[in-house]
Amino acid sequence: MALRDGQMVLGVFFNHTGHHVASWRHPEACVDAGVNFKHYVELAQTAERGKFHFLFFADWLATREATDTTLSRSAQYTAHFEPLTLLGGLAAVTEQIGLICTCTTSYNEPFHIARKIASLDHMSGGRMGWNVVTSSFKAEAYNFGREKHFDHEDRYARAREFVDVVKGLWDSWDDDAFPRDRESGLYLDPQKKHQLNHEGANFKVRGPLNVPRPPQGHPVIVQAGASDTGRELAAATAEVVFTSPLDVAAGKAFYDDVKGRMAKYGRDPSEMKILPGLNAIVAATDEEANAKAEYLQSLIHPEVGREILSMVLEGADLSTCDLDGPLPDLDPMPEGGTPRGVIAMARRENLTIRQLYLRLAGARGKRSTQGSVTRVADEMEEWFRAGACDGFILQPAYLPGSLNDVVELLVPELQRRGLFQTEYEGTTLREHLGLARPKSRWA
Amino acid sequence: MALRDGQMVLGVFFNHTGHHVASWRHPEACVDAGVNFKHYVELAQTAERGKFHFLFFADWLATREATDTTLSRSAQYTAHFEPLTLLGGLAAVTEQIGLICTCTTSYNEPFHIARKIASLDHMSGGRMGWNVVTSSFKAEAYNFGREKHFDHEDRYARAREFVDVVKGLWDSWDDDAFPRDRESGLYLDPQKKHQLNHEGANFKVRGPLNVPRPPQGHPVIVQAGASDTGRELAAATAEVVFTSPLDVAAGKAFYDDVKGRMAKYGRDPSEMKILPGLNAIVAATDEEANAKAEYLQSLIHPEVGREILSMVLEGADLSTCDLDGPLPDLDPMPEGGTPRGVIAMARRENLTIRQLYLRLAGARGKRSTQGSVTRVADEMEEWFRAGACDGFILQPAYLPGSLNDVVELLVPELQRRGLFQTEYEGTTLREHLGLARPKSRWA
Repeated sequence: MALRDGQMVLGVFFNHTGHHVASWRHPEACVDAGVNFKHYVELAQTAERGKFHFLFFADWLATREATDTTLSRSAQYTAHFEPLTLLGGLAAVTEQIGLICTCTTSYNEPFHIARKIASLDHMSGGRMGWNVVTSSFKAEAYNFGREKHFDHEDRYARAREFVDVVKGLWDSWDDDAFPRDRESGLYLDPQKKHQLNHEGANFKVRGPLNVPRPPQGHPVIVQAGASDTGRELAAATAEVVFTSPLDVAAGKAFYDDVKGRMAKYGRDPSEMKILPGLNAIVAATDEEANAKAEYLQSLIHPEVGREILSMVLEGADLSTCDLDGPLPDLDPMPEGGTPRGVIAMARRENLTIRQLYLRLAGARGKRSTQGSVTRVADEMEEWFRAGACDGFILQPAYLPGSLNDVVELLVPELQRRGLFQTEYEGTTLREHLGLARPKSRWA
Repeated sequence: MALRDGQMVLGVFFNHTGHHVASWRHPEACVDAGVNFKHYVELAQTAERGKFHFLFFADWLATREATDTTLSRSAQYTAHFEPLTLLGGLAAVTEQIGLICTCTTSYNEPFHIARKIASLDHMSGGRMGWNVVTSSFKAEAYNFGREKHFDHEDRYARAREFVDVVKGLWDSWDDDAFPRDRESGLYLDPQKKHQLNHEGANFKVRGPLNVPRPPQGHPVIVQAGASDTGRELAAATAEVVFTSPLDVAAGKAFYDDVKGRMAKYGRDPSEMKILPGLNAIVAATDEEANAKAEYLQSLIHPEVGREILSMVLEGADLSTCDLDGPLPDLDPMPEGGTPRGVIAMARRENLTIRQLYLRLAGARGKRSTQGSVTRVADEMEEWFRAGACDGFILQPAYLPGSLNDVVELLVPELQRRGLFQTEYEGTTLREHLGLARPKSRWA
């Protein structure tokens, strides 16, 4: 296991033209990112040059719903590559970096997901992770024969059973089930094949999976749920948790809470890496970073800002609000940790809707930071040493520009401080993260 | 459109260690093909060097069911890569060859399939095709919460609706829906977005698809159904038909029948390429080819032969039959064209079960041929000139060995005869095949 004591885990989240809502208008962004495969090849190879532990893709099963005005100005969440097939391509053009893909448990079948993730794990020599999510947009339900999305508790019950089935399918074949002995004619050992025979509330799946056990045993399980149910599912099953605390105190509280829940599932805290998303605009100096950030903010259309704020607040209707007035009381109150944190911040700092969306729109409700390499590295080090995280998932503002800045400026600084690896030492994503290879349930 | 008059279409079907049932034991086969990505990279690049119009993958959603004895000796249909993710990888390491993937309509959702195939079409610059199949193995049903597979007519009704929904989703965005104009801030034109609003007997799908219209408009539609219902679906929608006639007369009858059905759907016969599968073992001389074939046959275990024959005959129970006796009367009688042709051949030539499986096991019920390059090229030319096909889908007996033979020996001979292209002239699979780019249903 190759993660050294005192070193951070760093991932990078690729989101189309970049995480800033106006990124597509930036001259250093690839404007047709959604259909430009060479763009992603370049990003993945740059991230690998930067020794990132993994790259990460989110996913949605719909074009987001918005008024024509805001949709027409939106690049993200409209139409772009599908991540599983895209990762197949990126597995072929990279050698070492981990590859994490989001697949929802709400509108998929466990057999399909187990199979594709296992296949990608074989293709990549053990570099895959699966970000387990539930779907909560009506627009997604409409594409799968439903009138509404599943309720929160139903989604999570389904997710928990889904993960259990997928892990069971990954154990369909023992690691040594395929002797492939030309001489004796024994290709596989049927005693080392296992039928799952799962019958649960949501799924009935016999197995075996028609893919051999993945190189990692189980590809790495990633989650991002912040609700109480989500934290519980993470404590039970997640090996990487992607989180979005708005300050270091919230980060530490989340970290301690989720890791504290692991013992009752028989797990050690070291078996989970908690990684806040980090929207950082870095440059050689603070002035340069601030100018970059301001230029990006100047590209946001007010209606886009209003609508992104509404999305962060789980669809709250802000269409009739004065942009220069306060955030109204919301009914229903959003469920998730991120929107609740945003509302608390708005109240605490007495922000107008415009101030709030300018604070959030760029990073879509997540915390963002900007400054010199030293300032940003200091902040990362502070969080890390405070026990608020095990590392970060970088969310570059515009791509490829911001990724290049991170790899050329920030990564070397973290390496100088001994906080980040200078070479890949293992070969699989599990090894990169210092996670043990799971035994089969049949072992 | 780049397919020249008088030239064949040639595809190549990669099936794990090769199409011959004992291929995995051959020293020139890659024994761990199912999890060896480099094997497939080499195959795809070899096929591209051979100027094949496309490569082709079949698919099943289960490990095949067999006795422990036969399963232990089986490499194919057990556990191996998933084709959509694998094709993502192959799209990244090839430049020109078409990429055709099988996805069933029985245990999938149209939104997922439309999306992944569209995404691969973007990744590959317009080189994708989709082989539309229905699933008919119980083992597949068991992995998706069902006790049995769908009935034949239900499967085809579902398939027809599925294809219609997928094509509709591919038309979600007009070709020019994304101006991506940084200056004006117009990323997309909402007037060029279309909701499908499909409501049918099997599916309810709103849309739009969250992938822009594929480079080919619609990736190429491939089918292989031989039943009356299958032929009708092909006449209505297929652009490539993969078929398995056992002789040139049967080939011509199929060709004329299916192309004859197209007019009632308003289609011209040139809009469909009918391609028989061709299991050919080629060498410099007949003697060498025969020796290669005999060596392969010698690697077949009798129980594997019996079981493959049973599979070709749609699961007929042959377990108590004398291998040196005749094929018994089957009840129920198989439905498909291939098994019916096999039964007719056994009766006509008075074959024992052993003779029948030796004739079929290597090629799994499909016709096979062997001989010098001249003999095999003569046979291909005969079929082509007789109007029994528009080309072939090569099914190499063992991989990579047989593919290398085809590319080094057979392809140059066909090129010398002017029957096959010496360079790719177009860039998309549609251009390779001489097929027009479909207009959007909203145009």
